[in-house]
Amino acid sequence: MGGPGSGTLRYRNRPLWRGRYSWSVTFPVVGMVGGGQLARMTHEAGIPLGIRFKLLSDTPQDSAAQVVGDVVIGDYRDLDTLREFAKGCDVITFDHEHVPTEHLRALEADGIPVRPGPDALVHAQDKGVMRAKLDAIGVPSPRHRIVRDVDDVAAFAAEGDGFPVILKTVRGGYDGKGVWFVRSAEEAEDPFRAGVPVLAEEKVDFVRELAANVVRSPHGQAVAYPVVESQQVDGVCDTVIAPAPGISDELALEAEALALRIAKELGVVGHLAVELFETVTAEGDHRILVNELAMRPHNSGHWTQDGAITSQFANHVRAVLDLPLGDPRPRATWTVMANVLGGDYPDMYSAYLHCMARDPQLKIHMYGKDVKPGRKVGHVNTYGDDLDDVLERARHAAGYLRGTITE
Amino acid sequence: MGGPGSGTLRYRNRPLWRGRYSWSVTFPVVGMVGGGQLARMTHEAGIPLGIRFKLLSDTPQDSAAQVVGDVVIGDYRDLDTLREFAKGCDVITFDHEHVPTEHLRALEADGIPVRPGPDALVHAQDKGVMRAKLDAIGVPSPRHRIVRDVDDVAAFAAEGDGFPVILKTVRGGYDGKGVWFVRSAEEAEDPFRAGVPVLAEEKVDFVRELAANVVRSPHGQAVAYPVVESQQVDGVCDTVIAPAPGISDELALEAEALALRIAKELGVVGHLAVELFETVTAEGDHRILVNELAMRPHNSGHWTQDGAITSQFANHVRAVLDLPLGDPRPRATWTVMANVLGGDYPDMYSAYLHCMARDPQLKIHMYGKDVKPGRKVGHVNTYGDDLDDVLERARHAAGYLRGTITE
Repeated sequence: MGGPGSGTLRYRNRPLWRGRYSWSVTFPVVGMVGGGQLARMTHEAGIPLGIRFKLLSDTPQDSAAQVVGDVVIGDYRDLDTLREFAKGCDVITFDHEHVPTEHLRALEADGIPVRPGPDALVHAQDKGVMRAKLDAIGVPSPRHRIVRDVDDVAAFAAEGDGFPVILKTVRGGYDGKGVWFVRSAEEAEDPFRAGVPVLAEEKVDFVRELAANVVRSPHGQAVAYPVVESQQVDGVCDTVIAPAPGISDELALEAEALALRIAKELGVVGHLAVELFETVTAEGDHRILVNELAMRPHNSGHWTQDGAITSQFANHVRAVLDLPLGDPRPRATWTVMANVLGGDYPDMYSAYLHCMARDPQLKIHMYGKDVKPGRKVGHVNTYGDDLDDVLERARHAAGYLRGTITE
Repeated sequence: MGGPGSGTLRYRNRPLWRGRYSWSVTFPVVGMVGGGQLARMTHEAGIPLGIRFKLLSDTPQDSAAQVVGDVVIGDYRDLDTLREFAKGCDVITFDHEHVPTEHLRALEADGIPVRPGPDALVHAQDKGVMRAKLDAIGVPSPRHRIVRDVDDVAAFAAEGDGFPVILKTVRGGYDGKGVWFVRSAEEAEDPFRAGVPVLAEEKVDFVRELAANVVRSPHGQAVAYPVVESQQVDGVCDTVIAPAPGISDELALEAEALALRIAKELGVVGHLAVELFETVTAEGDHRILVNELAMRPHNSGHWTQDGAITSQFANHVRAVLDLPLGDPRPRATWTVMANVLGGDYPDMYSAYLHCMARDPQLKIHMYGKDVKPGRKVGHVNTYGDDLDDVLERARHAAGYLRGTITE
């Protein structure tokens, strides 16, 4: 934490401390648990702030571990490892939601600020807790309840419009994992095999998916990004359009206000992504229902790296440090993010030649991950005034990198 | 360089290699010599490209060494150290111009691509070589010649308009170091004490300083950033305004074309900054003269991080890898960069509260350096449509961080 010196450490003519000091001691250390691409991009966003970034990563090959200077290799499920890691940190934050809630409480008891804290994060860890809380504060969700077994699933279906229903393990799912689309009671056996609680939800007849991203700081300042449209393919986010095309001002404001209220009621610190279903009633009214919550930088916010004045990563860092938040407004009329999934061609680097030459404005964000079919290994951002053009450029680049477009 | 696998490594259906392979082997390693802020910001810009970044740094506390994952601590003046460092790199580039030219030739002889190469870089290392080359290709410079001693300085002055004249050691100077403003022959002794060749230049009666920044790749693609105005205080860059206010299209084009021609004639690969004097003749014609060259990302291009579609750092990386270059055009009407110099207050972090709260659009870039009076420790960028507002915001933030503004 900086080299030693001696003298009087002052702030604005007010002596803070006299004697020996480290000049850089006042720049805090942000510890991030998890070495995935979200940590990689948070590190990138933290470099300009001059903060120290420390990473707890499973392996030295993890996405973030490749590019961070101060890396501890260890298992986040082990409390001793977490405690040792936390010793050098001024605040702990997360690349994922998988750290056991009780470990987070132990770190807090040790006096380490954990942001978001366990009382907030549990809502992103446990879908049962999340639904109960959203019900309690009156946030609209799909019809849902915890189900005990296959017969209970059939009962849940009968209580509503029948099958299909969605089954989710309450913990551990993401990107379509831990989620089952069930057309009959016979198909409902798999989710129960793991022996963890299962949440049943109605299949919502939505017109599209939206995401409302907000960032909140410990002293309660919060900012809302424009609501985006999120297009999924096979349960995985494929394309994000910012702002959501054609959304009414009323619905956009309602979604932003809803996300800000959830952040406040749940005590979130940092970035909160609220995934939404947009539905249309028989009368033609547009409504929103909350699908999922994520308390960390989120795929639906990657467009902010090149499309917003302050990125979700920079604002997440500012929030966990309780610094004033940056302006979340867009810099372009339209920004499109397209995920790059692994395909049959492992050599994505050679594809840069075509992609960069075709579109000198293209923004490539690769994660340093080995290519495996279907795996998210990067994304691209494009922006401009013509949505069709911006969409085409993003989809072409993502497809070419994946290998599904070859010309 | 990625984990091993086995099978057929293909590119676009063409088998490249069969057997065991590393998936990530095709992503190149960029080795950068020098651990200063330029390397720090180049690493930041390289992260999204998924390239591997390797750093040769003097100490682990250097600006870039704090944030880079793969750091070698060593002395760039030692050829064995350079050779060992270069073994793991696909290309070598530089944070500064101080690596001995003969070492660069040795690396090239070893088969390591050095970009910019020694034949180009020598023009940024040796002001005598630079002036001779610019004369040879007909680029306008201040009147100049190598001077032998104090008497020769008096002769040089007498050949023109007399004193004052500028004296520069041909190697090793930057930010006003190695440069003397000499009002008489008596004042001309200091530059000769070091025993290195001294270049005399006329004191140009300029109206302002400009900088033309270009990036050139090995296969000859080149892009030009808008010409900027660079305001110096005590020989150190203080503020950069992009584009240069009030510049005529003709003069801007002339400066861009001049920089592109210099890059081509000198065989530059990577970023080239051409520092210019703008003069006005008795007839009112605006002219430009070349002051200095820098072959690396440059302070006059820091505005591109937040103000251009592709930053100078991203384009430098793309150039040294011979990737197609990114769009250099501005994203805002005006962008202003203001350097943050060290002042009396070592605690710049606490000043973030005021700066970020006052201006949520402010972009802070700190280098992780200990604060010393007058030392460049960071910069801020602001952008917008109203130049007065953009200038005021940048100057306020830089002054507040330094401690010269306290309200």
